[in-house]
Amino acid sequence: MFDFNYFTPTKVVFGKGTESRVADLIKEFGGRKILIHYGGGSVVRSGLLKRVTDTLDEAGISYVTLGGAVPNPRLGLVYEGIELCKKENVDFLLAVGGGSAIDSAKAIGYGVANEGDVWDFYDYKRKATGCLPLGVILTIAATGSEMSDSSVITKEEGLVKRGYSSDYSRPRFAIMNPELTMTLPDYQTACGCTDIMMHTMERYFTNGGNMELTDALAEGLLRTVKKNALILCKDPKNYDARAEVMWAGSLAHNGLTGCGNDGGDWMTHKLEHELGGLYDVAHGAGLAAIWGSWARFVYKDCLPRFKKFAINVMEVDESGSDEEIAIRGIEAMEEFYRSINIPTNLRELGIKATDEELALMAKKCAIGVGGEMGSAKVLNEEDMLAIFRASM
Amino acid sequence: MFDFNYFTPTKVVFGKGTESRVADLIKEFGGRKILIHYGGGSVVRSGLLKRVTDTLDEAGISYVTLGGAVPNPRLGLVYEGIELCKKENVDFLLAVGGGSAIDSAKAIGYGVANEGDVWDFYDYKRKATGCLPLGVILTIAATGSEMSDSSVITKEEGLVKRGYSSDYSRPRFAIMNPELTMTLPDYQTACGCTDIMMHTMERYFTNGGNMELTDALAEGLLRTVKKNALILCKDPKNYDARAEVMWAGSLAHNGLTGCGNDGGDWMTHKLEHELGGLYDVAHGAGLAAIWGSWARFVYKDCLPRFKKFAINVMEVDESGSDEEIAIRGIEAMEEFYRSINIPTNLRELGIKATDEELALMAKKCAIGVGGEMGSAKVLNEEDMLAIFRASM
Repeated sequence: MFDFNYFTPTKVVFGKGTESRVADLIKEFGGRKILIHYGGGSVVRSGLLKRVTDTLDEAGISYVTLGGAVPNPRLGLVYEGIELCKKENVDFLLAVGGGSAIDSAKAIGYGVANEGDVWDFYDYKRKATGCLPLGVILTIAATGSEMSDSSVITKEEGLVKRGYSSDYSRPRFAIMNPELTMTLPDYQTACGCTDIMMHTMERYFTNGGNMELTDALAEGLLRTVKKNALILCKDPKNYDARAEVMWAGSLAHNGLTGCGNDGGDWMTHKLEHELGGLYDVAHGAGLAAIWGSWARFVYKDCLPRFKKFAINVMEVDESGSDEEIAIRGIEAMEEFYRSINIPTNLRELGIKATDEELALMAKKCAIGVGGEMGSAKVLNEEDMLAIFRASM
Repeated sequence: MFDFNYFTPTKVVFGKGTESRVADLIKEFGGRKILIHYGGGSVVRSGLLKRVTDTLDEAGISYVTLGGAVPNPRLGLVYEGIELCKKENVDFLLAVGGGSAIDSAKAIGYGVANEGDVWDFYDYKRKATGCLPLGVILTIAATGSEMSDSSVITKEEGLVKRGYSSDYSRPRFAIMNPELTMTLPDYQTACGCTDIMMHTMERYFTNGGNMELTDALAEGLLRTVKKNALILCKDPKNYDARAEVMWAGSLAHNGLTGCGNDGGDWMTHKLEHELGGLYDVAHGAGLAAIWGSWARFVYKDCLPRFKKFAINVMEVDESGSDEEIAIRGIEAMEEFYRSINIPTNLRELGIKATDEELALMAKKCAIGVGGEMGSAKVLNEEDMLAIFRASM
């Protein structure tokens, strides 16, 4: 067991109609001039954006808006947001949307609160010393960015996708109304569930310092998401299932499911970041398309954890050797992905990469992680390429 | 499922030797003049207090000290602390100890930050509008006060024990070094485990709005504490078991295990508060001495939850009727209490109450809760008396 810090200051306001409390929350956290940052047209079409601006108007809170955050949010829009905030003297950011809008807002927040190029933080060149305070109205259960310290931005030049984490960017509040997620396309709902589970699985498959309590929480969370993801496939308007998944999304990535371990593995995420940078795939689907190949490549080096996962999460038959049980767990996970219509390899994801492209992704990934990385098994460039190839 | 708020801003610094970081944390949260509040002599004898004051001296942080917080901490000492803080211009409280020191410090914090008599808050007369910021070095895993919004104070006159909760009193930081709990007497360790489990069980046995995710986390936490409490009976210096229990203590009472439910039952706590006020028993032991009688009195009105608890937490045989399974779970819990040498009734607790004393406790309890209370089953004064009698 390793020492750990745990810091989740975000005030969560969870339930039906909670977006109506946005003005009170902004005031509570001292916001006077707001940048409302959102993604595509869905928050406009659904009327959510109008409800939010009406609430702010009523409360006499001044704001500007910036839409356009896309999945794998782009650095160009971040720069635009920073300029806008400086010009308008914005002192509080409100992200309305999912991980794209929130991550983009976090990057804008870093850019406003720190001198110099904000990309430096994502490029591991220096550390932020602050971030503009941020609130969230969540519309997709997936990334957990609404309580996490992390954000991922893609630089257009070279399609470089990088993450940066610091406690400064943890949102001050997160409004979570499960009803807002009911209109999501089924594929996005399923991708969200995949992402949520992977955030906890990345922390679970380690070779260092596990806590029984953390394991018990992680396993309970994974079982709950698995069950409710299947419910949402058939009944997307099921409020309770939406709520279970939404709250799981926050807990899966706020640090709770990693307490006491070595920080986690995170190689599936790193490999997927290369996919996402190059092909602009849905993050959750990209993760699932990589995971099986990653798992088969590493499980022998992390056998006790894969066995525990197979039994306590996938609830497979416990007969046979540890390796057989572990493989049964991996197969059950892939079967679960298929049952919610999520791809389990690059082909199913619609990617026909050449060997050169796979080699380029492995190379970029290795550079991105500083040569090698992983806890279940430490991977170098050659290993990464082998996993990419196996996932074709 | 009910809507909920979740707010746990406490920065947790968990692990070996973490008390050495106290000065940095106080500075991080803006403390300049500190009141160090502690309980009995153990933090003095162990050298912990000296290590803390040495660290503050080195960092140039000014402080005054106030010891003497006792189990079921007293209002008189709270008044003394408030006076001392005002006289010395204290702007930050540091509680070194367990629930007694932390709860007492929270009450001092309310008293300094609000005009008038601090008892008013505990007497339900008015609400606090602030609390002096507070940090904690935890030495006992039990009450969860290090992350919770609650505190319990006993007024000497009439031995009235009352709780008050507000987010203002949530500690800014909590330093948790499991090693500091290794020298606790076995009985206190076991009482702590009982208290921790009860904080989650109070939230679990409800007739309203349960979330599957919350249940999964609660059940995992309860199983983990149960297992590690048994380990600590035989091996009190087991670091990992100490750590599991310590972290569980915080998560059991910071709100996590109650998300989505109706707020919980809490009648075992209310009944125990009367015991604790009148007889000065260890809180955890008092809870256990009441719980079995409470459970048998209410389980038919909350059968699905008692059945779920029996199967998922106590892991009993699932044969027979729901009632049989529920009773098997209650019996298994009592057997667990006995196995860690914790009393399961008032007699074993060493209390020989007269019928007049039981009636007085039931009456005070009913007044304290405003007539009647409970979620598993709503209890009035007559019910409370019946439970006290059954627990003799």
